[in-house]
Amino acid sequence: MRFHGYFRSSSSYRCRIAFNLKGIEYDFVSVHLVKGGGQQKTAEYRALNPQALVPALEVGGQVLTQSPAILEWLEETYPEPRLLPADAMERAAVRAFCNVIACEIHPLQNLRTLQYLEANYAQGLEGKEAWCQRWIGDGLAACEALLAKRPATRFAFGDAPGMAEIYLIPQMFSAQRFKVDTSAMPRLRAIAEACAELPAFADAHPSKQPDAE
Amino acid sequence: MRFHGYFRSSSSYRCRIAFNLKGIEYDFVSVHLVKGGGQQKTAEYRALNPQALVPALEVGGQVLTQSPAILEWLEETYPEPRLLPADAMERAAVRAFCNVIACEIHPLQNLRTLQYLEANYAQGLEGKEAWCQRWIGDGLAACEALLAKRPATRFAFGDAPGMAEIYLIPQMFSAQRFKVDTSAMPRLRAIAEACAELPAFADAHPSKQPDAE
Repeated sequence: MRFHGYFRSSSSYRCRIAFNLKGIEYDFVSVHLVKGGGQQKTAEYRALNPQALVPALEVGGQVLTQSPAILEWLEETYPEPRLLPADAMERAAVRAFCNVIACEIHPLQNLRTLQYLEANYAQGLEGKEAWCQRWIGDGLAACEALLAKRPATRFAFGDAPGMAEIYLIPQMFSAQRFKVDTSAMPRLRAIAEACAELPAFADAHPSKQPDAE
Repeated sequence: MRFHGYFRSSSSYRCRIAFNLKGIEYDFVSVHLVKGGGQQKTAEYRALNPQALVPALEVGGQVLTQSPAILEWLEETYPEPRLLPADAMERAAVRAFCNVIACEIHPLQNLRTLQYLEANYAQGLEGKEAWCQRWIGDGLAACEALLAKRPATRFAFGDAPGMAEIYLIPQMFSAQRFKVDTSAMPRLRAIAEACAELPAFADAHPSKQPDAE
């Protein structure tokens, strides 16, 4: 299994946590998103993933793209330990939590969106941070509200980490990077602290990757 | 089953197609996203969905939110006819296609994002259309490229419509609304034409909904 990613990409970070939780070995190929105008834009990488985004997972002569699809595939193919609950309603609750991050926050704060704000609306660092703070702040507040309805377990949906934390932890990292105020999100912060103690999460941190700067 | 949605919302539109394909009956509750500042922002609706977004599905005393989570739940709970392929690699390919739309396009073109562009970057109709054209155009081009690698079947992933079309058709509707040029996307256009002939898709069209204006 060959994994193409970038240390700072949230969606690569998600996959790294899942590999670690499930104990899956893989070869890593670094795709630098900034150097030389972005290695993801080369013809070689586009042949692998026409969308020119990381991550991409080569497996059995095929290429999987889009981290949510990769994560569902990993869960189906390597079922232990499970990342989604056995009950269908509970699975839907976990997936909704993940979707808030993947579908409502992530694309608004990724590199090419911020580049557009800079190029077309003359937004500097401050303007880009305000933009990120709005969308990350709103999304994480929704995540906190979703959990407020539930028992206060150690992790988001029980006593073990799973899909919710796989999405949450990279997003919390990104929140810190863009100076998002998370002081009104005690549940999310407690979950992040609990995850930081686990090697599967600590080893997946961007600063620990071979391509980290 | 009680479905809270809005005629023009792409994510509501996705769910309507899935209900129709699977022959699921439901009660519809209209949540007008614009009237009176947005009915999704009322305390009553926020109690149902703290994220103040449509759709929400009430079922068995619980509330499911986020259309991708709702669609996976529908597929698990009402397995016939199936919307995802039986093979895990194929399922990953279909989900990646859906993710391009749900995670890369949708949030960039939804109402609150466009309202932000207007309020903070003084973007009028033209500026907002340029923004939408960029992200919808890029995303749909990636969808077209994903399908270019595959046999030219009547629908995206074979001879029957499924999850891919559930995401694609509402996105094509939105592309038209924002005047996106889809002339270089013959596969997507052919799939949209094939879907338009099916009652499950035709009946789910925004113009056919009780809250349509």
